[in-house]
Amino acid sequence: MSTALIILAAGKGTRMNSDLPKVLHPIAQASMLEHAMTAGQALAPERTVVVAGHGADLVKAAVAEIDEVAQVVLQEEQLGTGHAVLQARDALAGFGGDAVVLYGDTPFVSAETIERMVEARNRADLVILGFEAADPARYGRLVMAGDSLEKIVEFKDASDEERAITFCNSGLMACDAQQMFALLDQVGNDNAAGEFYLTDLVEIARSAGLTVTAVACDEAETLGINSRADLAKADAVFQARARAELLDMGVTLMAPDTVYLSLDTVIGRDTVIEPNVVFGPGVTVESGALIRAFSHLEGCHVSRGAKVGPYARLRPGAELAEDTHIGNFVEIKNAEIAEGAKVNHLSYIGDASVGKKTNIGAGTITCNYDGFMKHRTEIGAGAFIGSNTMLVAPVKIGNEAMTATGAVVTKDVDDGDLAIGRAPQENKPGRARKLMDMLRAKKARITNKS
Amino acid sequence: MSTALIILAAGKGTRMNSDLPKVLHPIAQASMLEHAMTAGQALAPERTVVVAGHGADLVKAAVAEIDEVAQVVLQEEQLGTGHAVLQARDALAGFGGDAVVLYGDTPFVSAETIERMVEARNRADLVILGFEAADPARYGRLVMAGDSLEKIVEFKDASDEERAITFCNSGLMACDAQQMFALLDQVGNDNAAGEFYLTDLVEIARSAGLTVTAVACDEAETLGINSRADLAKADAVFQARARAELLDMGVTLMAPDTVYLSLDTVIGRDTVIEPNVVFGPGVTVESGALIRAFSHLEGCHVSRGAKVGPYARLRPGAELAEDTHIGNFVEIKNAEIAEGAKVNHLSYIGDASVGKKTNIGAGTITCNYDGFMKHRTEIGAGAFIGSNTMLVAPVKIGNEAMTATGAVVTKDVDDGDLAIGRAPQENKPGRARKLMDMLRAKKARITNKS
Amino acid sequence: MSTALIILAAGKGTRMNSDLPKVLHPIAQASMLEHAMTAGQALAPERTVVVAGHGADLVKAAVAEIDEVAQVVLQEEQLGTGHAVLQARDALAGFGGDAVVLYGDTPFVSAETIERMVEARNRADLVILGFEAADPARYGRLVMAGDSLEKIVEFKDASDEERAITFCNSGLMACDAQQMFALLDQVGNDNAAGEFYLTDLVEIARSAGLTVTAVACDEAETLGINSRADLAKADAVFQARARAELLDMGVTLMAPDTVYLSLDTVIGRDTVIEPNVVFGPGVTVESGALIRAFSHLEGCHVSRGAKVGPYARLRPGAELAEDTHIGNFVEIKNAEIAEGAKVNHLSYIGDASVGKKTNIGAGTITCNYDGFMKHRTEIGAGAFIGSNTMLVAPVKIGNEAMTATGAVVTKDVDDGDLAIGRAPQENKPGRARKLMDMLRAKKARITNKS
Repeated sequence: MSTALIILAAGKGTRMNSDLPKVLHPIAQASMLEHAMTAGQALAPERTVVVAGHGADLVKAAVAEIDEVAQVVLQEEQLGTGHAVLQARDALAGFGGDAVVLYGDTPFVSAETIERMVEARNRADLVILGFEAADPARYGRLVMAGDSLEKIVEFKDASDEERAITFCNSGLMACDAQQMFALLDQVGNDNAAGEFYLTDLVEIARSAGLTVTAVACDEAETLGINSRADLAKADAVFQARARAELLDMGVTLMAPDTVYLSLDTVIGRDTVIEPNVVFGPGVTVESGALIRAFSHLEGCHVSRGAKVGPYARLRPGAELAEDTHIGNFVEIKNAEIAEGAKVNHLSYIGDASVGKKTNIGAGTITCNYDGFMKHRTEIGAGAFIGSNTMLVAPVKIGNEAMTATGAVVTKDVDDGDLAIGRAPQENKPGRARKLMDMLRAKKARITNKS
Repeated sequence: MSTALIILAAGKGTRMNSDLPKVLHPIAQASMLEHAMTAGQALAPERTVVVAGHGADLVKAAVAEIDEVAQVVLQEEQLGTGHAVLQARDALAGFGGDAVVLYGDTPFVSAETIERMVEARNRADLVILGFEAADPARYGRLVMAGDSLEKIVEFKDASDEERAITFCNSGLMACDAQQMFALLDQVGNDNAAGEFYLTDLVEIARSAGLTVTAVACDEAETLGINSRADLAKADAVFQARARAELLDMGVTLMAPDTVYLSLDTVIGRDTVIEPNVVFGPGVTVESGALIRAFSHLEGCHVSRGAKVGPYARLRPGAELAEDTHIGNFVEIKNAEIAEGAKVNHLSYIGDASVGKKTNIGAGTITCNYDGFMKHRTEIGAGAFIGSNTMLVAPVKIGNEAMTATGAVVTKDVDDGDLAIGRAPQENKPGRARKLMDMLRAKKARITNKS
Repeated sequence: MSTALIILAAGKGTRMNSDLPKVLHPIAQASMLEHAMTAGQALAPERTVVVAGHGADLVKAAVAEIDEVAQVVLQEEQLGTGHAVLQARDALAGFGGDAVVLYGDTPFVSAETIERMVEARNRADLVILGFEAADPARYGRLVMAGDSLEKIVEFKDASDEERAITFCNSGLMACDAQQMFALLDQVGNDNAAGEFYLTDLVEIARSAGLTVTAVACDEAETLGINSRADLAKADAVFQARARAELLDMGVTLMAPDTVYLSLDTVIGRDTVIEPNVVFGPGVTVESGALIRAFSHLEGCHVSRGAKVGPYARLRPGAELAEDTHIGNFVEIKNAEIAEGAKVNHLSYIGDASVGKKTNIGAGTITCNYDGFMKHRTEIGAGAFIGSNTMLVAPVKIGNEAMTATGAVVTKDVDDGDLAIGRAPQENKPGRARKLMDMLRAKKARITNKS
């Protein structure tokens, strides 16, 4: 059975107090929308339709980044969740299959839960996602009769008996797509807010003689985000879970609470992570690596046995081979560092390749930018780059070649050759003392005047 | 009605186990004394008198930094709180108005609470600040009769009925200044400690036929600091509150618990703060900036759209205009960075100005110090400073000027000109291999010997 | 009475999910084995025998690092704790004295507790270490009759009455060494797991008419480590305790939860530690120092009045004298920095000495490595090292000597002399504008093509 995702992402999120549309606020370095879309991918949906409203252009651009073939439709006025889903009708014209409605601000619904919703379609026409609430408060209650969902009662309309129910409505649902749109045509807006509520589908479906059921998920999955504080709490929940998973998988986190992970971080067994490490999106670390304190990694790959940090910054495109060392105050960007190579101190290696066992001296900089374009630096294997070498790209350094300390290298250096570029040292006897005396006197004059 | 603040700051704080006077220990990068004085400023007091004792010279210097016109009086011997307040008598000779007594080690009393104390003077001669204690323990109890404070009973003297009272004494009070001193003359020291207690004023005032009342504040405001652990807890309380306020105001803190704020930190809406950022005193960040992980800011201004870090250090006097980029391992001190300018890697820009859209190459250093004095560097707009340029101040680089990689610039460079200063690169064929063979052999010889 | 330690360290620790033997996983930068061995040192044991099994070679190497004279014996098959202790028999042949059995994965037993176990040997032949369990769960219960330990009952064999006992077995014990081995010969393996249990000694000893007692320790001391999550929790417990001790001793930790300490960290009174500081092994900080945010220290000494960081990395062998300043993005390794000297920005000082009041300019690098060996740099007192000076070791800079900005110093500089090495600056009128026009045009061509 083919399925379509309809993701509601039109809300403004007034309490976020932000110019950014609510669903684009990030948790674990990925937008809430990306979390929801990623979970939905478990269904291998044939179609994905995102309903945008506030900040639709930004949402559209974000969707394109996440999933090229997803469609974005516009809900011009925010007239309720039922109205929002109806905006997907044209996009799904002629689509024969189920539609699953997800919310862009409910990022933690798991792939497994979404799969269970679709499975439940085998036994009912309409499937609602519910959860056992620890404190049901003002949630809508799901009134069940065996496996059948009799009705959803809003808290304000509920009897005492109904208020005692703890099985509550998450708002997510699954249904045959065309049937869902047909039923939605019957939803009215005769309520205080004048909105079309998706929830009304349950009553309408039952009136039409259709079967309705509910499946349950963990309450934590239904966490909705309405403020920056909610966002921060959700990030904390994500981090706690992701850290626990890494510990279980045999990764040492010396101080788990200080390690920040992204939605897609992958770290191998027996890798050790010291305190205060931040993993941005797109990082893979193999087994048996060491990531030292105060390191910052994004979009990079770290191989077995590599040592990174402290204070190492790996930017997108950094590829560290086995047994490489990247030391303190070093930035690596879009560069392959081959097996056993070392960049230990105060360097910037960008748009470059560094060969096996090559040693990059302290203070080395690949001058990759001419103010207009970026250029590449290629360094061979077994090379020795002297401290404070400036590699003015494009430039190539051969295998087992050397550069002398302080050289500004603008021409290629062949295998085994040495590049020098340095003004000779000249010692001026007594000149330091004279200079200091002069400067001291000058300072005294200025100080006396003021 | 004019008011005077009397701030008690004479205590040693034995349990702090410190050479620093207790009130100078910091919370959120500001001394406890500064917290108390800042809250008191809400009254726009005509006079501020700080009563110093232990470490009086240090306290005096600190007061001068916070408020130039505040007076510091000395309590030579610590003979109790009543005695301490009396030391302010000479400083307030002839002052006609109210005095509010604050404590230098009770930093969280809010401005609003202090204002309410002064307002309550409209309905009573003496106003005591009380609080509802969650666990009253051994605090003094405030025995009220309607709005009238009947007496303060110390725990050890209290009946069971009085011990059941949860409204407790904070020690703060407000009264006509001259009346307070007159009443204090009647306070005795006939007690176990032989001290003159400020608290005794209540009984003396009532005996003299004066009216006494109490106003209530939140217990958290009366938190007193007696040890480094208390200090750390108070800092945590401050941070939690300050972070929550930022979230409410529409600032994203990815990991709020890892962001350290100062008493005076100001951050605009839709600014995003990554994990592990420290804000020292005097920082203002406008809306829509991005402060990346591991950044450290003090005494600086960051404008809208600026990107800072990771690993950026902004020191006092750093002024970042809109859309500037300050990257990793970069230190900016006392320098204006104009709109759209970039300093992305491994640089020190101090005592300088950088023009619009200018790009500062990696490894650039403003050599601002000659061992005796600091000098300025001025860089124009649209300039391109090559990697590893040394700008030996005082020096000026013109608009759209360039410096070549590795140049040591000691002379001004005019608009549109290029400064070069570089020994030419010379390649020595085969010399690297020879050098490596020689060094390898030498190492082998030394290793064999040992 | 002479004593011997027998430390059981043979387990694999399946739930650690690691190639590293369980006891070598670290807490507070020291292996669990080191924690246990360090606590045992309080007895000044005549002998220490570590029973290794899984990863025995790694354990052996680790033991040699911790205690040169400790013996390591091999338990080839893991046949139970009784069997493990018996492996120490040959190593202790002829030893007349007590043996104390400790566990390599129970790192928090205190030295004081171990001493009390040995003292208790004065009143019983066999001493078991017990603890009052908050939640006894499935621990073995210690059935006492006065001071006499009657028996240890495993949970599954316990009556309801016995299950109500909260005094539980830690597994640690003390006994005359030779008697322990003799008793162990009588332990059988007739149980579900087919293992020889050390616990069985209690029953065997009592049957033989020997006296058995138990001493109690805090439950926290008996925390056993079975997973990476346990390890992280144990580290958190250690950190919380160590931080509280520092606060008590008069050290200011602005944000205690963000300061990571090692087993052997020593910090003096009135030192201030800002947020996010990591102390690796072997660090001593004297009184009245300031360690700023984001600093990382290992194997170093920081004297009174020194200021370190932010973003300072002190590596093993860094020795900072009084009133030194080490600033941001600076790495110091194996180097003595004399009184009042400053290394404030973006520098690497390794294998070096820096004299009193010397100022090291930004971007200075000691080029200590030639690709094969390390060499030393010696800098005198009152010297001024210009920015971006490359000190090519081995090299000496005299007292009150200077190096000019950007010099590559390969020859010694005598007292009071100035070393220069710099290509002269040449300004090319209009050349920057031409270059920019050319590059802009080139970029446009490339962009148009694509």
